[in-house]
Amino acid sequence: MEQLFSQVLRVSVRCRDCEDRKSNIRVTIQLQLTTSPIHRRDLLVRLTDDADPFFLFSLSISEEDFQSLKVQQGLLVDFASFPQKFIDLLKLCCSEQESENPRFVLNLTCQSAPLEGPASFSVVETNAFKHLNHLSLRLAQGSDRELKDYLAACLASMKAEKQALDLKLKKTEDDLSRQLSYAQQ
Amino acid sequence: MEQLFSQVLRVSVRCRDCEDRKSNIRVTIQLQLTTSPIHRRDLLVRLTDDADPFFLFSLSISEEDFQSLKVQQGLLVDFASFPQKFIDLLKLCCSEQESENPRFVLNLTCQSAPLEGPASFSVVETNAFKHLNHLSLRLAQGSDRELKDYLAACLASMKAEKQALDLKLKKTEDDLSRQLSYAQQ
Repeated sequence: MEQLFSQVLRVSVRCRDCEDRKSNIRVTIQLQLTTSPIHRRDLLVRLTDDADPFFLFSLSISEEDFQSLKVQQGLLVDFASFPQKFIDLLKLCCSEQESENPRFVLNLTCQSAPLEGPASFSVVETNAFKHLNHLSLRLAQGSDRELKDYLAACLASMKAEKQALDLKLKKTEDDLSRQLSYAQQ
Repeated sequence: MEQLFSQVLRVSVRCRDCEDRKSNIRVTIQLQLTTSPIHRRDLLVRLTDDADPFFLFSLSISEEDFQSLKVQQGLLVDFASFPQKFIDLLKLCCSEQESENPRFVLNLTCQSAPLEGPASFSVVETNAFKHLNHLSLRLAQGSDRELKDYLAACLASMKAEKQALDLKLKKTEDDLSRQLSYAQQ
């Protein structure tokens, strides 16, 4: 599993009967390589919210899935170069997200209310004439099982960070106490 | 939700076709008070493993459930005093768990292999003559949904601990640097 991108981005969230709102959503892109039983590559796109442990939308794109996506959305790149192009688009949105009238924005739209079930994640450019859809991916909401796995991974990394911090605190106390007692002599 | 007990205890785990093993299991007892729509009290017993995020067995005992448990196991206490008696038994096991031949032990037994499905959690006293079962509770294995909620709660408390540690580290650095610069003057 190779992590290609993981960043918190401003996303406009739209559900039916809800007011549009801007949310800070973590977008993660990973490439999963499987060699057994057959060699395959899957691109995993995941939306999570660092402030809401139950927020999880994801999509796995295999090479075959990508062929349909390519035809359906008129893409001109192949599977190998798609991730980088997608990341370039995300970075473009990121660079503009503080602007009052961003040209590139991210939308997460779902038909139900509240945010539930499948949702469409799009990169949209707005010019003087119209909204141009650069890419639109249909993400599924995480099941209890997927959420469980995601939360266990979050917990493990949080635990590791906490342990590192614990060590750093001890080391800082030791270092500075030593320097202090040396300076006081 | 009132937490009455939460401690890591040595438990003998037995599944079918597995070798018995001693595990360090966190036993948590909580009292849940609900006032609406009706006033009710439930005792929640939960077994988790700090090292295995997917380990979760639990049982919720209502006042009615307790009446059956009382008859079935010949208990002489009422619902209100049951939690403290149970905790006393757990503390007794805890105080003996380092001994080579503990008189009181905790068992977690399940019929399937590996540890899966309902399991029986018992407090057993062993004397020269026999094994005496002081209490035996039938716990259900956590569903994906329950695990998801449990992991989200773990993540929230781990996050809070990490933030507290972060603050403490900053404060320690500031304090000691100030003392150091003062001592060096």
